[in-house]
Parts: sequence; structure tokens; C-alpha cells
Amino acid sequence: MIDSTPDAYQKVVEHCRQTALLGSVSSVLGWDERTQMPVAASEHRAEQMTLLAGMIHQRSVDPQLGRWLEELENGHAAADSHSDRATNIRILKREYDKAARLPQALVEELTRTAVLGQHVWQKARETNDFELFRPTLEKTLELKRQEADALGYKKHRYDALLDQFEPFELTENVRTVLNDLRKELVPLVGAIAQSKRRAPIEILGRHFPAARQEAFGRAVAARAGFDFQRGRLDTTAHPFCSGLGPQDTRITTRYDERFFPSALFGILHEAGHGMYDQGLRNEAWGLPAGLPISLGIHESQSRLWENLVGRRRSFWQHFLPLAQQSFPESLSDVSLDEFHFAINDVRPSLIRVEADEATYNLHILIRFELELALLEGDLPVADLPAAWKARYREYLGIEPERDAEGPLQDIHWSFGAVGYFPTYSLGNLYASQFFDAAQAALGDVDAQFAAGDFVPLLGWLRENIHRPGQCYSASELVQRVTGKPLSSGPLLAHLRQKLGPLYDL
Amino acid sequence: MIDSTPDAYQKVVEHCRQTALLGSVSSVLGWDERTQMPVAASEHRAEQMTLLAGMIHQRSVDPQLGRWLEELENGHAAADSHSDRATNIRILKREYDKAARLPQALVEELTRTAVLGQHVWQKARETNDFELFRPTLEKTLELKRQEADALGYKKHRYDALLDQFEPFELTENVRTVLNDLRKELVPLVGAIAQSKRRAPIEILGRHFPAARQEAFGRAVAARAGFDFQRGRLDTTAHPFCSGLGPQDTRITTRYDERFFPSALFGILHEAGHGMYDQGLRNEAWGLPAGLPISLGIHESQSRLWENLVGRRRSFWQHFLPLAQQSFPESLSDVSLDEFHFAINDVRPSLIRVEADEATYNLHILIRFELELALLEGDLPVADLPAAWKARYREYLGIEPERDAEGPLQDIHWSFGAVGYFPTYSLGNLYASQFFDAAQAALGDVDAQFAAGDFVPLLGWLRENIHRPGQCYSASELVQRVTGKPLSSGPLLAHLRQKLGPLYDL
Repeated sequence: MIDSTPDAYQKVVEHCRQTALLGSVSSVLGWDERTQMPVAASEHRAEQMTLLAGMIHQRSVDPQLGRWLEELENGHAAADSHSDRATNIRILKREYDKAARLPQALVEELTRTAVLGQHVWQKARETNDFELFRPTLEKTLELKRQEADALGYKKHRYDALLDQFEPFELTENVRTVLNDLRKELVPLVGAIAQSKRRAPIEILGRHFPAARQEAFGRAVAARAGFDFQRGRLDTTAHPFCSGLGPQDTRITTRYDERFFPSALFGILHEAGHGMYDQGLRNEAWGLPAGLPISLGIHESQSRLWENLVGRRRSFWQHFLPLAQQSFPESLSDVSLDEFHFAINDVRPSLIRVEADEATYNLHILIRFELELALLEGDLPVADLPAAWKARYREYLGIEPERDAEGPLQDIHWSFGAVGYFPTYSLGNLYASQFFDAAQAALGDVDAQFAAGDFVPLLGWLRENIHRPGQCYSASELVQRVTGKPLSSGPLLAHLRQKLGPLYDL
Repeated sequence: MIDSTPDAYQKVVEHCRQTALLGSVSSVLGWDERTQMPVAASEHRAEQMTLLAGMIHQRSVDPQLGRWLEELENGHAAADSHSDRATNIRILKREYDKAARLPQALVEELTRTAVLGQHVWQKARETNDFELFRPTLEKTLELKRQEADALGYKKHRYDALLDQFEPFELTENVRTVLNDLRKELVPLVGAIAQSKRRAPIEILGRHFPAARQEAFGRAVAARAGFDFQRGRLDTTAHPFCSGLGPQDTRITTRYDERFFPSALFGILHEAGHGMYDQGLRNEAWGLPAGLPISLGIHESQSRLWENLVGRRRSFWQHFLPLAQQSFPESLSDVSLDEFHFAINDVRPSLIRVEADEATYNLHILIRFELELALLEGDLPVADLPAAWKARYREYLGIEPERDAEGPLQDIHWSFGAVGYFPTYSLGNLYASQFFDAAQAALGDVDAQFAAGDFVPLLGWLRENIHRPGQCYSASELVQRVTGKPLSSGPLLAHLRQKLGPLYDL
């Protein structure tokens, strides 16, 4: 009897790489749409994207692919379950089975509702009219329940949705870690709000010409290790990072001439995402072994560069003199201590995307707790605005007057992204835990940063976080790299260590 | 018996529009590659393009498409052979049959040789080594002969190749018209070379900052009628115009701060191409009735705006004051007469792409005559350099010392584009003939141009040239719009009328 497995594996690889190739074409169209495309071209672009999406979907649920994968799964198990081959088979089979479990009618209804939902949400936010959005959100949640039931789960319905963004992660674990975080973070943020010391944020609101911000941001990103031979930086209204191919990673930002941190930390954030993509293995491109693990791990890389590196004193030992050369009229009279305090300003606010490093996680906690309650039917949608206010009051000490600055502020729920929010805080948690491990391995990182040397850190990230692709799940990777399971300890320790002295706590 | 033709037509339309949609995706990739893509991404981009090209080819030779088209061709003939439906069936059937006549092995060999040929040509041009290129050109010509034989022709092998760029046009007709042109143009250019009057070209070599050139060029293109809501202007090394969809036409240029005409006339040229694309009917997009007729007709639109409009005195009555505002340090002391003479400088030169409006056609004549002789075996490739020199000496009074400025200067033959060159001069001929017809219809165009009003001209072009798409062949369109067949008369009259007074002939 001939063992046909090697042949089936080769066929699966070819099939999935070609699907990924089509996906990368779609990414080019998406990037172009958001950065270059003439306004009148959007209808035709939608036709192009729809055609490709259809082709990609068809390939993803191709029964022949299912048969090959089944044959492979039933074949000899690989000696090392973390090998590229074993990983590719395991993850592709899992994704194929998930896709196969979703009835076509439900997929179409979800897509229709998502498109419509975004329009309704936009209108509702503009007019501050939660009631307008309520029926759409109710319908979305009902469809998401059906989706979760079709996908299957062991304990929590939410598990099935979370898994779409953070594969293998479980509601119970996320709830425990975020609860631990909340217990310490709420008092810490409260103490900072009570502190008499205030960050000199006026510095950051001086005049910073956009062209010079771009040149400076480009230099910082390049020094951090973002490879411009394999990437670009452009301007958009809504910053993002997009992979258009294994050697083509493009980031964007926006410039506020009256608020320095917006573009610079935005660039570092997107460059962090970009360096992760640039650190994946080319030869595994298009297959799980060459793909990012999860949204949370992706976010850990952006947050690590934005916050743990970019808001660190030693980072600015190197870069503040250069910033002063770029913006002499605004920064020449600013000391390192003042600058460092200004960029680490912490204060409760209502808008998630403008929140600081510490309070940001409370914004996420609120959304996680509320969407969990909404999905499980414990919170009727009609009661969401009141519940939102109560949580903000409890965790941050403030509450929004308008729903537009409350439950209508984020786009996510409008297109059915339930289970997405926690990945932002998971990113922060992973980042701190990874950074501690990097420090333990690399010695005096502050001396390196002060000398403008980020090669050791990036090298460590490449080796430990980027190169494995999906050969480990997020929780396996955390355990493997840090020796411990995910916990709130490192992030809390990092915040206390930095903010304690600044706010004289 | 049920007449299934309407159904077949709908299927053909859907099939071909989807093929065109894939083609437009490929155009986005191509535009991105030439204007935005990071250098390291070229290999992956080639993979993306190859995948799409394969899909497009497969759809184009799909036997089912052939059966539908055959059914339609054998059905009731449409009352009006120039209707959209009749046109689509006629042209699609013709293209399908042509594609079906080419053996797959020959197509692959042509593709391989074209890719290789460009590399060899580039090397040969760099090192001025015609002998290095000779075997490749010999092989290319042999393959083109096979291609022509497979495609079929009535009288000249060259007909089959010309048809790929200028459908329905015949070698005999092109030869006659270009011969007529040569007989008058050679003495005209000779007389200009002997004239004591010289254009004050020093003006154009002053300093023109790139950013201001871009702003000025953008304003000129917009005023001419290029729609920036449905298009873009970018910078590239090799300027081009590309249609990425029915509402997405992108042009590019390059800026030489020490030579004003390069970017400005380049922009007008590409905007002329772009306005043609923008003038095609959206509802017919992706089908022959909504596609450009031929390279020659496309070129007629670029040449018309670049030369017949852009180098006309009345055009600069409107734009010179604006140019003087944009470049006061370089143009404030320049009179309209001086400027007009400078931009209409005529002098024999060796490089086609830098040639003026008059001598340009002699460069094309030489290439047309030589490629015809090469294809028909009347001229051995080894004798090409000597033949090239002899023709340049005869037609332009000068000859290149180096083959890099002789037969190695153009890329076309290296990738098998034999039959392409004459479309450039056909474009000039069509342009003059169309412009005369427009003038007859519109009255005093000079008064309109001097007032910066190009709406009447563009409106006439839209109605007469752009909107018909391929409902008429090029020669049918010329007859229909101008009442006469193609001839060298209008172009010669235009050149004499403008250059006679300038050079005191």
C-alpha cells in the first residue's frame, strides 16, 4: 500500500499558498483604497474586492482540500507537533473544519448585517442616537450567538468568538487575568488622579510641522528596525499596518501639528506591527508556520515598541537630542525629565483610542465585561448605555454625557467583531511579560537604548516571538518564552515602576 | 425551437466583464509596482501577476466562451453592425479565434524569450554591444514569423503583427501613408536645419523647481479636462497612463528642474491618454464597446493634447501668464513669441523619445521600414546597425556613433513588440485629421484656448472619438469623423503652417 501523505501535503501547501497569494492581492487593493485611490473609484474597487473574496472563500472550503487534510490528519503523526509540517496540518485542518461548520446562509446574513451595521452605527454616532443603533446591535448579537453555536464551544459561547481573534484562548482565562489586572489598576489610576504632580503636557502641544514629523518618525522607525527596503510609511486618516506580501509591509500614520505624540507613537506602534510581519519566515509565507499567531500577539509587538520602548526614559536619552534638532523652536528648552513625564501622562478619559498606557486597559475591561454580558443575555441591549456609564464611573471615576462618547464610540460591534476587544489588553500583558524576558536575556537594555541600539532587542524578538509563526499557540509561546503562564503581574509592575516616581505615589 | 441567443449574450458579457475585472486588479498591481512598491517586493509581485495572468488567459480561451460566441455569430445578425451588441460579439469572437489559433507552446516560448530578451537588451545597451543582442533579436524575429503564420494574414506577414496593436489596419496602407509623409517631411526638416532662425531654447533650461512644476502641471491637466476625482498624478522614472477601473485613471510624469518641457508636455501627453480612458462609456466597461480602439487612436489623443493643443500659441496666451506667476525668476522676461518658438524647436536628433513634433515621425519611419525588412528577411539582423545609420543619414542628416544610440535605444523589439512603432505616427496623423474636424465643428478654437476654455474641444472628442469605443475600427472612425480616409495631408499642413513662419521658410 502506498502512503500518499507526502503528496497530499504538497498539494495542501500549493493550494493554501495560492489562496494566500490571492489574499495578498486583495491586501494591495485594500492598501491602495485607503491611501491612493481616487474617490470616484470606490464602487469598482468593491467589485474587485468582492470577486477576490469569493475566489478566496471558494478555495478555503474546497472539499478536495478537506479530503487532503483529513488524509494527513489520519496519517503518521509527526514526531514534533511544533514542526512546520505538523503546525500547518493542525491549524489548516482546524480552520477548514470551522469554516465547514458555518452554514452558508448564516455567513451571508453575517456579512449583510455587518455592512449595514456599519452604516447604521455611523449615523447613530453622528446623531448621538443609541436607539437608532439598538435593533442592529440586537440582531448582530443574535447572529453571533448562532455563529458561536455553529462553531461549537465547551463552556462559554464567547469562547467560540474569542477564538476567531485569539485562537485557543478561553473566556475563563481572560476573565481571570483581566480581573486581576482591574483589582490593582483601578486603585493605581485613582491614586494618580489624586496626585498633586501633573505631567507638563503643554510641551507636546507646541508647533510640530508635519513634514519634519514625518522625517523624524521615519528615522525613528528605521532605527528601531523597520526595514524600508521591505516597507513604506504613508499618511491616512485611520492609521494601520498592512502586509501586502512577505517583503512588503506598509504602515501609515496621521500628523497633528499641535500634538507631537500622535504621529510619533502611532508610527512606533505600526512599526511594531510591521516588524512582526517582517520577522516572519519568508519560506513559510502563506501557511500557518509563517503567519502571525493571533491579534493579541500582534498587538504585543506594537505595544512593546510604542509603550515599553518608546515611552522609556533611555529611549529618549538617544532620541530627544535628535528631536530637538528637528524641532528646535518647540523642544530646545525641554529637559529629558520633563519630556519623559509629558509622554507618560496618565489621566482618566472617555475615548479609548486617546487613552494613555495605564487607563487604556480599563477601557478594554469595560468593553470585555459588557460584550460578554450582552452575548450571554445577562445585559439587555437597551440597558447598555446605563451600564456603560456605571462601569466608567466605577473604574475611571468619570462618565460620558453622550452615548457617542459612550457605547457608540467604537466601530467593532457594528460589524460583528465581538471577542475582539480583549486582544488589545492581552497585547499589553504579553508585551510586558515578553519585555521582562528580553531584559533578562539581554542585560542592560537601557544602555543599549540610550546608545540608539535596538538590534539586540529586535534580534531577541525575531528569534523568540516572530520566527515561530503559529508553531505555538499564544499561551504556549508565553510559557515557552517567559517560563510562566500569562499573568497581570509584569504589566502592573512595569506601570508601578514607571509611574510611581513620576506621580510620587 | 427556443432561440437561446439572448441568454448566451448575457453569459458572454458576464464572463468577459469578470475577466476584465481581473485585468483591472492586475493593473492596480502594475501601477503599484511602478510607483509605490518597496524594492524587495518585486519577486512576490511577479508571483501575484503571474497568477492573475494565468487566470485571465484561462478565461480568455475557455472553450465554453468559444461555443457561446459561435452560437451568437451564427444567430440573427444585428440590424446595426456598429451597435454595442454587434460590436461586442464581432470583436470578442475575433479575439477568441486569434487566441485559439496560437499553439500553447509558441505562446510560452514567446513569453520566455520576451523576458530574457529584455535582460539581454538592457545589458547590450549598457555595454553598447549589438552583437550581444543579435542572437536574441534573430530568435525573436523567427518566433514572430511563426506567430504571424499561426495567426494568419492575407498579404503581408507584418499584417498579423500590426493587427495586435492596430486592429484591422494593413501594412500596405500604413506604408503608403508613411511614404507620403516622408516625401514631404524630409525636405521640410532639411529646410529647417538650414534656416538661420534658431529657437531660444535657453529659456526652457532655466531653473524650474519640481514642486512648482507639479502644481502647475496639475492645474494645466485639470483645466484641460483631466478629472482628478477619477484619477491621480504621480512621479515615476518612466511616465505612463494606466486605467485601474472605469473611474480610476492614473498618470505619471518625471520632473527635470533644468528642462521645463519634459514634465509639462509629458503631463499633457499622459492626460490626453487619460481623458480618452475617462471618456469611454462606463456602462460598457470591460467589453469592446467600452474599450479603446487601438494604440494609434489612443496615441492620437495624447499627441493631440501634447502637440496640437499644448504647443499652440493660443494655449500659451492663457497659460504663459500663469506659468510666469509660478516661475517668476525664470519666465518673467519671456515674451509669448519667444516661449512659443522655444517649445516648437525642431532639430534632427538621434533619440526618438527626445525628438520634436516634426522629426519624431522620421524616427518612426526608420523603425517601421527596418522592422518590416527584418521580419520579411530582406535585412539580416547583422546588417541592422549599418542600415540604421544609412537611414538616419538619409532622413535626418545625422547618424549615431554608438549602437546604444542606434538600434539598441528602444526596448520594443527586445520583448517582441514588432508592429508597434507605426502606431506612434498613426497617432500623430489621426490627431491632425481629428483636430481639423474639431476646428471645423467648433469655430474659433484659438479664442477658446486663449480664454482657457477647453470644454468645447473635450466635448467634441468625447462625443466623436471616446464614446464609440470599438464600435468603429480606426479607419472607419477616421472616415466617419473627418469624411476622408487617413492621409498625411493634415499633419503636413499643420507642421508647415506652424513652422513656416517660425523658421522663415
